[in-house]
Amino acid sequence: MKSLTALDQLIESLRCLPGVGPKSAQRMAYHLLQRDRNGAQHLAMSLQNALSRIHHCLKCNNFSESEVCDLCASGKRDAHQLCVVEMPTDLLMLEQTQTYHGMYFVLMGRLSPLDGVGPKEIHLDRLLKRAQDGEVQEVILATNYTVEGEATAHYVGELLKARGLKVSRIARGLPMGGEIEHVDIGTLAQAMMERRSLR
Amino acid sequence: MKSLTALDQLIESLRCLPGVGPKSAQRMAYHLLQRDRNGAQHLAMSLQNALSRIHHCLKCNNFSESEVCDLCASGKRDAHQLCVVEMPTDLLMLEQTQTYHGMYFVLMGRLSPLDGVGPKEIHLDRLLKRAQDGEVQEVILATNYTVEGEATAHYVGELLKARGLKVSRIARGLPMGGEIEHVDIGTLAQAMMERRSLR
Ligand SMILES: [Zn+2]
Ligand SMILES: [Zn+2]
Repeated sequence: MKSLTALDQLIESLRCLPGVGPKSAQRMAYHLLQRDRNGAQHLAMSLQNALSRIHHCLKCNNFSESEVCDLCASGKRDAHQLCVVEMPTDLLMLEQTQTYHGMYFVLMGRLSPLDGVGPKEIHLDRLLKRAQDGEVQEVILATNYTVEGEATAHYVGELLKARGLKVSRIARGLPMGGEIEHVDIGTLAQAMMERRSLR
Repeated sequence: MKSLTALDQLIESLRCLPGVGPKSAQRMAYHLLQRDRNGAQHLAMSLQNALSRIHHCLKCNNFSESEVCDLCASGKRDAHQLCVVEMPTDLLMLEQTQTYHGMYFVLMGRLSPLDGVGPKEIHLDRLLKRAQDGEVQEVILATNYTVEGEATAHYVGELLKARGLKVSRIARGLPMGGEIEHVDIGTLAQAMMERRSLR
């Protein structure tokens, strides 16, 4: 039975971070132990805190510390519009454009069969239920204009239209292959205002 | 007074890791919360465990869970030779060559004035004391053959020679700019065997 040292264990654990291979994990462990023990302590506590406090909003599926997030709980949003985005960052970017005042649904991903991400992984059952609450009149698909984002918009759009919902897609103001997270606010605002109905 | 959410705190904390900017930190936080909560839990525990258990060996300055590490405590090493390396990885690499059976001192860095790393940061006072314990007869400088590694070897070598110690440098078997961590074992073995005396 081989027992790992505390250092080996730390290096191994750091590899759960995306994009961190064996060499980076080692470099990180050395750095933390030698130069930033306070940072390491803070990271450990933040991880514990985040794990115990952060869940998904029952309505929009975004990360939230309460059952229903502040945005969904706010009485000031237009309940007739539901905007579907891939990631929480996309929601934050759209909020910054100040062109949209409806509700959101965060897929937490995009369809990607090769990576094992299917309809279940992006919570389409919950989205369909949410979109058919009786209040939503228009679903705006604001997934990225990447290959996977487009495929997701198409798939989701077909499902929603089959249920009699009005579906629109933010305008192709983004450059081809562009991701919402990296586009300037002006372009994104244009794309939101020029959204087109899917038929 | 602005209070950060648990998510903001986690993203902020992840930035203590070297090479992790705001975008990577966000991506890491999302990944952990959404796809690898077990990994995050494990990482938090490993950090706590490492912080409480890992210190520096009183003799060689390497990371160790005991006051004096296993290598320094072993009765089987040649106490007449002391090999100075930059990082723990370099020590592990040299051990793999099986060409050296003496003791080590790990600087935990290299002189780098621009980064604020001076003689104090690489523990030269402790190295000088260690080298003058009465048993050490030869100090082998096995810092990297980079600009900073060379400068460190030169500086440390002068100090040690001024105290009457025999000092040698591993041979330039490594390619220019090469780092011990990335060289093949054969080349490194050659460099160790062909070490030359500094005069
Ligand atoms: Zn919500
Ligand atoms: Zn030791």
